[in-house]
Formats: sequence, C-alpha cells, structure tokens
Amino acid sequence: MSDPDRRVLGDMDPETFRREGYRAIDWIADYLAHPERYPVLSRVAPGDIARSLPAEAPEQGEAFESILADFDRLIVPGITHWNHPGFFAYFAITGSGPGVLAEALSAALNAQGMLWRTSPSVTELEEVSLGWLRRLMGLPDAFEGVIYDTASISTLHALATAREAAVPAVRASGMPGRPELPRYRVYCSDQTHSSIDKAVILLGLGHDALRKIPSDRAFRMRADLLAQAMEEDRRAGIVPMAAVATVGTTSTTSVDPVEEIAAACEREGVWLHVDCAYGGAAAIVPECRSALAGVERADSMVVNPHKWLFTPFDLSAFYCRRMDLLRQAFSLTPEYLRTAEAGAVRNLMDTGVQLGRRFRALKLWMILRYFGAEGIRARLVEHMRLARLFAGWVDAHPDFERLAPVPFSVVCFRAKPRGREWSEAELETLNARLLDAMNATGEVFLSHTKLNGRFTLRLAVGNLRTEERHVARAWELARTLLLEP
Amino acid sequence: MSDPDRRVLGDMDPETFRREGYRAIDWIADYLAHPERYPVLSRVAPGDIARSLPAEAPEQGEAFESILADFDRLIVPGITHWNHPGFFAYFAITGSGPGVLAEALSAALNAQGMLWRTSPSVTELEEVSLGWLRRLMGLPDAFEGVIYDTASISTLHALATAREAAVPAVRASGMPGRPELPRYRVYCSDQTHSSIDKAVILLGLGHDALRKIPSDRAFRMRADLLAQAMEEDRRAGIVPMAAVATVGTTSTTSVDPVEEIAAACEREGVWLHVDCAYGGAAAIVPECRSALAGVERADSMVVNPHKWLFTPFDLSAFYCRRMDLLRQAFSLTPEYLRTAEAGAVRNLMDTGVQLGRRFRALKLWMILRYFGAEGIRARLVEHMRLARLFAGWVDAHPDFERLAPVPFSVVCFRAKPRGREWSEAELETLNARLLDAMNATGEVFLSHTKLNGRFTLRLAVGNLRTEERHVARAWELARTLLLEP
Repeated sequence: MSDPDRRVLGDMDPETFRREGYRAIDWIADYLAHPERYPVLSRVAPGDIARSLPAEAPEQGEAFESILADFDRLIVPGITHWNHPGFFAYFAITGSGPGVLAEALSAALNAQGMLWRTSPSVTELEEVSLGWLRRLMGLPDAFEGVIYDTASISTLHALATAREAAVPAVRASGMPGRPELPRYRVYCSDQTHSSIDKAVILLGLGHDALRKIPSDRAFRMRADLLAQAMEEDRRAGIVPMAAVATVGTTSTTSVDPVEEIAAACEREGVWLHVDCAYGGAAAIVPECRSALAGVERADSMVVNPHKWLFTPFDLSAFYCRRMDLLRQAFSLTPEYLRTAEAGAVRNLMDTGVQLGRRFRALKLWMILRYFGAEGIRARLVEHMRLARLFAGWVDAHPDFERLAPVPFSVVCFRAKPRGREWSEAELETLNARLLDAMNATGEVFLSHTKLNGRFTLRLAVGNLRTEERHVARAWELARTLLLEP
Repeated sequence: MSDPDRRVLGDMDPETFRREGYRAIDWIADYLAHPERYPVLSRVAPGDIARSLPAEAPEQGEAFESILADFDRLIVPGITHWNHPGFFAYFAITGSGPGVLAEALSAALNAQGMLWRTSPSVTELEEVSLGWLRRLMGLPDAFEGVIYDTASISTLHALATAREAAVPAVRASGMPGRPELPRYRVYCSDQTHSSIDKAVILLGLGHDALRKIPSDRAFRMRADLLAQAMEEDRRAGIVPMAAVATVGTTSTTSVDPVEEIAAACEREGVWLHVDCAYGGAAAIVPECRSALAGVERADSMVVNPHKWLFTPFDLSAFYCRRMDLLRQAFSLTPEYLRTAEAGAVRNLMDTGVQLGRRFRALKLWMILRYFGAEGIRARLVEHMRLARLFAGWVDAHPDFERLAPVPFSVVCFRAKPRGREWSEAELETLNARLLDAMNATGEVFLSHTKLNGRFTLRLAVGNLRTEERHVARAWELARTLLLEP
C-alpha cells in the first residue's frame, strides 16, 4: 500500500506527484462533467461522516491513491454540490475550471504575501487584477483595492477604518474606561447582511450601536429615514460613525438608493461603506452599470469575485478611498518584518489584521483572462435572463406569487393556491413543506427567507452549469409537488 | 488562440479541463522537482511585475495554455520561492504534494461550510481531523477545535472570547459611552507576535492595554513579573483580561513557562491563550511533548498546520475550552440561514466572525494520512537535527556567535570576527551586509531580528526539501562572504 517515496524524508516525489496529480485531475474532470449525478443537497444524517472515520490519525503513511478513493467513497457523499446545476440556494456561487487550476498553482507555490519581498508577484498581481476588476465595474481609480478572504472581513476593515476616523486615539487608547467618549452609531437597513452585525460586535461598539433603518416596499433602505435617524441620534448625543448600504441584499438582491444615502452621509461626515458582495459583479454588464450609481461617492465598498465571478471560494475584493487611514489603524512592523524597500513598496500586511496572505490574485487574473470581459458579460446576462424567465412563470401562474422585484438573478416567490383564504401561518407551513419536498428530490436546492413576515422561497441563479432546462425543472417541481398531498 | 469551448456559455468544458489540468500538473511536478533553479528571493525591482501586465482585462477570452505560459514567463520571476530548499527566512513554512492536490479537489468542490447542511463533510471532517491533530499533540479532548485562515484570526477570536467573559454585556452594549467600565489589560511578553497587538487594537481595547512583560535571558516570559504586573494593575483599578503565552516565539522560538503563567492566570481568573502557531507541531515528537506542558490548563491555543505541518497556506487550528462562550459572542442566525437541524448539528458560522468557510480540513486529513504519524515525526526530527547541526557549527567557530537557545528548528546567530573590539553599531552594519550578501546569491534566503538590541541573523529550517547539504551551503556562504570586502 505504501508508495516507494514514503520511506525517505522530504515531500511526495515529483513523479508520484505527476501520476497522482493526473488522477486527481481526472476525478475533477469527471466530477465537473456530471455534478448532477449526486443529489444536490447531501443526504447524510448528522454524525454519519464523522462516524465513518477513525478517531486517530494513522501511524503509517498511506498511498495517495487510496486516500483519493476514500475521499470519493466517504467524503463526497457528505458534500452538498455547489457545482450542481440545480443549486439555487443562498447565492449560487460558482467556481470555474481556470479558477481550480489557479488554486492548484497557488497552493504549489505556497507563496505568502505578507511583505512585497516575500513574493513581489503576490502584491503586484493583486494590484493589477483589482485594477482590471475596478475598471470593469466602472469604479474610479481613487479606490485602492486589497484582497481579503470574505466579505465579513472586508466589511470588518471598512468599519474598523470608520472607527479610526471617528474615535479619537482609538488605536492607542481604546474605548473602555474613557468617560469622555460618547456612544456611536452605525446604520444599515433591515435587509442588511449579518456580517455587519458581527463586525459591530467585534469592534466593541455593541450590537445596540447598529440601527436598522426600515426599507421600502421594494426592500431598499429609506434614505429619508436614515437622515432622520442620524439627526435624532445627534440630538441625543450619539455620534453617527458609519452607514452601510447594499447593492444586492441577501434576501431579495434589492439595491439601496446609494446616491441619496451618500448625500446624507456627506452632510453628516459619516463613513459610507457599500456592500456589493453579490451585486457588484453585475456592473460589468453595461445595462446594469447603474446598479453601482453613487458607489463612487462611498468611502469603501466590497465585491466578492467568489460569489458571481467564477472564482473558487475564497476571494473578497475590498476597495477603499482612504487606505491610508486603514493602514494608520493597523500597520505595525516588528523588527523581524522590517525590509530595506519598505518605503518604496506596498506591504500587504499593513492593510489589515491578517499578517499572512495567500496568493489569491492568481485565480482572479486567470479567470478574467480566460473568459474575457465579453465572456463574463455573456454569462452574467444569461443568469439574469434565466431568473427573469422563472419570475415570468411565477407571475403568470394563479397558484404562485412573486414577493420582490428581480434586479439581478434571484427570484423571491411562494405558493399561494387560488380558491381559498390563507393565513400567514398556513402559507408558511405550505411553503416550508414545498421547499423540503423540492430539496428532497435531489434535483434542486433552494433556500428561504422571510419578507415582511412572509415565508419566502428563493431561487438564486449563479452557477456556470445552470441552463434553462434546470430552471424549467425547478419550476416543474414547484408546480407538481405543490399538488401532492 | 481561442478554445472551442469559449464560444458557448458555461464553464471550461471537462475535456479541456482534463488537458489543461495535466498541463498545470506537469508544470507543478517540474517546479517541485527543481525549485532551486530559481533564485530563492525574487530579484525583480518594485513595479516590474505590474508594469509587465496590461492595465485592462482582455475583451476576448484566451486559451488557458497561453495564460499558463504567461504565468511562467511574467509571474514566476516575481515569486520568492518558499519551496526552495534554501528558504531559511521567517518560519520556513512548507506545503506538500498531497496538500496541493487536496487544495485542487477542495477548489473543484467549491463547498462553502457556513452551515452543516451546506456540506456536512466540511463540518465533520474538520472535527475529525482536528481531533487527530489534538491527539497527536497530546492535548485533552476538552479542547474543541475550529479551523480559521491564520493565527491572526485565531488569536483575535481567543481575545474576543476573553473580552466576552470580562466585559459585562459587551456584545449588546459595547464599550464606548459606558463610564462604569474600567480599563482592561492584556499581557504578553516582549517576544510575542505582532498579531496580539493587532487583535487588541481591533477589539477596541487600545494598544496601551497590551502590557509587554520582560523575558529572561532565554527569551521566555518572566512569570513572576507577569504575576506582579497583574497585581499592580488590579491595585490601579485596571482589570486583567487575558494573557498570551507563546510556545515557539517568532524571533528565537523560545518557550514561555506556560505552567507558571497558567498558575498566575488561574489565581487572577484571567483568560490564558497560548500561541503555538509554530511550536505546536513539535509536540507530535515525543521528545518535544514537554514543549506543550501547561497548555492543557489554557483556555485556548492556536497551532498552524500551514507552518510546520506540510499544509499549504492557509490553515490555522484554534482549540478552545470555552467554545460556548465564543459562540455566545458571535452566533447570530438571520432567517435566510435558519435550518431545521440547527439544534442537532454544529454550524461553523456560529464559531466566529467569518460567515463563509472553505473546505480546508480536506488538506489536513489528506496530509495526516499520506505521511502518517510516523512520517511526520521523522520529518520534524530531521528539521530539528539540521538546526542543531548548524548551531553546532556556529558554536565551534571563533568568528560567529549564537544568540539564543535552539529548542526547535531556528538558529539565531551573528558574525563577530575575532581579533578586535566591535561596537553594536558596527556589528549591525557587518551582519546586515552579510545577510544581504547571502541573500543576493539566490541560493539561500535568511531573515533577521533584533535580540536585546543586537542585530541577529535567523536560519529557520522547515521546508520538506531542505537537506543537510543546503544547511551546509548556508554555513559555507556565511563563512566565505564574511571574508569578502
């Protein structure tokens, strides 16, 4: 069972790597050719996977071939297949072939980009590829970019920078035990992502410091109520620190009125961060460019290529007009990280809380080149076409209703069969059952949300493998399963 | 130039993926066979890489083959080769063949582990592989594990949990504008890693809240001075919140007296976090098990398999006795992430600030199986043997001196040629020049630190490709380049 190279020290020998690498590539090629051979939502029960594995690491090493066989046999059944063309849950994020190969190359180089000198290409390709993306989205060059792992971390840095701007001497003196400090407020809408809540908690501002502004009937933040809330807080001695607007909220992909929110923030001198984690990619399509209107007035914004730009998880792009302030908040160079070129180059470790950075820019660069601007636009347009198609079917059917506009590629809907009155509780039971029944087929996976108290099904199109027939099948399942007892 | 599959929508077609995948694997196999064909420290000048690339993404897509050719021609010259057997800088982290293939598989699955149901295997394999690692290190089962990206984030969560325990109602009410709150203190030694500083700043405690306890002549925290500092702070009305001990400090890999520090923390009811990011792996070797003595009394600890456990960057393992408190600080479930099984399973999103989690456990599992406990021990022992060998050469040479003990695989030394008196400033000039001369050869890359004001060269052994001849060559270079004018 043992490879010949196991008996010596060092790494897997290169010829074994080549042979086993081909084997892994074959597995992936076969998998990506037919991800729908698996049920999209894993069917294992809690604990099944853990119970199938020994409690201790093996004493002797094993051949990669048998590890890969166990992966296929024991691990893959516990995978929910984000590559399945019927994956319509959450945001249907999608990787891609060139992205997978870029990740393999990046893992092989194992370059750690904390300093420019620890791999100049990591720093400079990040700058170049984020420049490409910025121009594709039509954002001004004044936005300097940096790559983090997730939007949670991007937004955390946005709000940490807002705190640096708002709280005197916060870096050195902190916040507790300073009776001279007021309370601060961060604003977002009632549709904003939970990462804002977590950032506010982590930064020590307290969850109560987050004020959720009501949204309008189309789930967009009411900018008038935001302005009113800021005034009210000021009068009460609470200092407005930051506002977070969203382009593409998680439940409905609604787009906040960023222009008006920016105007309110400018009047109050408040940091504006825009969460475009999902919606930002759409701005690459000329007809959707207006979705980012006003974002050029923001202090910072985040867009996640790992959501809707064919990039394997994780890669979050953070753009900021005041990266100097972010560096002021976080840069800190111990002696063992000092370099002669520090004044002349960017050291990524200065731009955040994580010291180590893996080489994520490589996949973004390879993906943008492989598909080209044209190919990216065509795919985004197709996803939006499929969502509108589905929305049209819902609208035309007397037993279903749509619960939100469809600005991008997510449809919010529910069943509401004609011919009787329904209470909200009954509709929730009905739709929760319908959702479970659809997901139990293994052909599709949808998730839910609540909109104004209404239990809502979400169909999110975003995977590169999703075609019209998959969306049509989801619709067929919704209609037929609704009729079953 | 265009692949046939480019003209349709969707991903790279599976047969193209197979062909280009083999090509990428061939590139990696050839690279890993001869990483020393490149200078270890990249020789490009600032801006060279960025200038070699266009300012805009291409309009039309390109064949993967030409992108890979450009990667080799334009990007690789800007890589500092962490795989080079002469990489002795910082901590010489190392990936491995099975780790690279696991990353490719993980990127292909593109599973996002925020919830158990979004891929049960992501959650359960994390539990299993962290259990394997915990037992290999001899830590008690009471430590529940979670995987983050970096030690910076692990330590941030440790201190956030300490804050949750220490500051009443901090989650809801935060810290500013609460005159009833005292000031808090976090303790570490003067050798502790800068990630502690950044965490304290981010959490809003203020950099001044971090008190650095002097270390002894072997660079270990003085536990007596820690106890004294806590008492002193208490008397001054400052509340001790947490202490951070280190097993394997960054400059010298010194080991703090964790037993005594734990005793002091227990007396004061203070959270103890132990940073074993580098040193934790050594505990897998029975003769080094004692390095973790006392860690079983800590509240939390971090060890980074991406440092010295053959795991491609990034994978940081965080272990905590009070994961309930961490969840209390961060768990937050919006409607769109509610699931029926929530009570019966672990949802990884509850264990921290990042919502999205990539499938990192896969590489740890594959690596532990591929090398086996035996193979891992043999490799760690060999690295430590090489470091001690180098230390012996330094000790025996009249023109060099060693500046710290060598508990693991890092040697701190400097040149101090016999036959004259040297000021510290002269020695710094001499050794900085020697360091630059060694690194300019392209055969080795060492980094430096300062120890008690002395400019110190560091030779860190940690790469799977490093053999005795590479360490011998580093020593030969040090001796011969010292003699050059």
